[in-house]
Amino acid sequence: MHYSKEELQNLDKVKRLNIINSVSGVKPANLIGTISSDGATNLAIFSSVVHLGSNPGLLGMILRPAQDVRRHTYENIMETGYYTINHVQRSFAENAHFTSVKFEKDESEFEKCGLTEAFLFDFPAPFVAESQVKIGLKFLEEISIPVNGTSMLIGEILHIEIFDNAINDLGYIDLSLMDHVGVSGLNTYYSLSKVDSFPYARRSNLPDFTKKDR
Amino acid sequence: MHYSKEELQNLDKVKRLNIINSVSGVKPANLIGTISSDGATNLAIFSSVVHLGSNPGLLGMILRPAQDVRRHTYENIMETGYYTINHVQRSFAENAHFTSVKFEKDESEFEKCGLTEAFLFDFPAPFVAESQVKIGLKFLEEISIPVNGTSMLIGEILHIEIFDNAINDLGYIDLSLMDHVGVSGLNTYYSLSKVDSFPYARRSNLPDFTKKDR
Repeated sequence: MHYSKEELQNLDKVKRLNIINSVSGVKPANLIGTISSDGATNLAIFSSVVHLGSNPGLLGMILRPAQDVRRHTYENIMETGYYTINHVQRSFAENAHFTSVKFEKDESEFEKCGLTEAFLFDFPAPFVAESQVKIGLKFLEEISIPVNGTSMLIGEILHIEIFDNAINDLGYIDLSLMDHVGVSGLNTYYSLSKVDSFPYARRSNLPDFTKKDR
Repeated sequence: MHYSKEELQNLDKVKRLNIINSVSGVKPANLIGTISSDGATNLAIFSSVVHLGSNPGLLGMILRPAQDVRRHTYENIMETGYYTINHVQRSFAENAHFTSVKFEKDESEFEKCGLTEAFLFDFPAPFVAESQVKIGLKFLEEISIPVNGTSMLIGEILHIEIFDNAINDLGYIDLSLMDHVGVSGLNTYYSLSKVDSFPYARRSNLPDFTKKDR
């Protein structure tokens, strides 16, 4: 099945949205926890968290224009300077999915969606108690993406809490042991099974892929 | 297991790298295909492709500083203005992983890693014949991320080719039917199983999560 740019533009809007939201491949499911300056907590599912660097630990996430339901997340981060990223697991994927209902600012998605606020490490923003990977970040900067009015928020990692059994001595994290879920499009969730682990790729350990009958 | 920023900084470098490269959650495995102005093809695995928008279809990807092995990808995109994004499937995940060996510019990762160049739709950059989702993009802009010297390359989707059986009439793509793989860290690959599909989240279809015995 081939779609050119023109064919994509002529598709029904929902079909185009479904296709283009899926073609980047599997996306991580994360809940972003924030609090307003007057103490109202907020939780929103994002599938656009991306690794930017390890020293210091930096993560980015893409924000749509201001009319989006995630505007409370943005406003809270701008007000307080802090937010949390919490992995979504299968046991609460449905709860996490429904944080994207357009709630009012004084309604907490934690309460409406049956998830539990956790305030840990004297960190100002709420973590999701149910999540096995909780990350506390300090907002660093917003980089605007003028071509379509989106922006990337960049945060520095101040805290990581990981379920003990899922991390080994070398720091390898096994996402399948935590029942972490991936997303494609806007509403399809996948569980993960670890299938391969390859060494750091060097010329000295390169398999001979040119042999036909490997 | 809790790590503060200071504890992360004091960890062994490899362990810190492994942890921070995994905490964003599952990442998509994609191969970026390019060609230099004098016709040398290049292929590089990226786990940082991110959806930016659907109309027009825009995808971003994060590039490390220039000394990275992916510099040939960057140089080729700057020279020609075009590149391809190709989903990695389990059947060639090892081949894809080894594209990150530091090859010379006149060595093609297609040949060294046993993958097949496909030139389709009169598009200037090479697709990966083995891949069931092939995307042809036109480079639009580079957005620099000064805080750690990385940048985001943004491209507009000009072509999408998808394995017929994996896309339905509504445009939903089932990544598990294509044996698409996700990555965590730098070297752990996961297969996907579709577990849930939820409706567009509205107040009218919000489950009552406040009931304890749902």
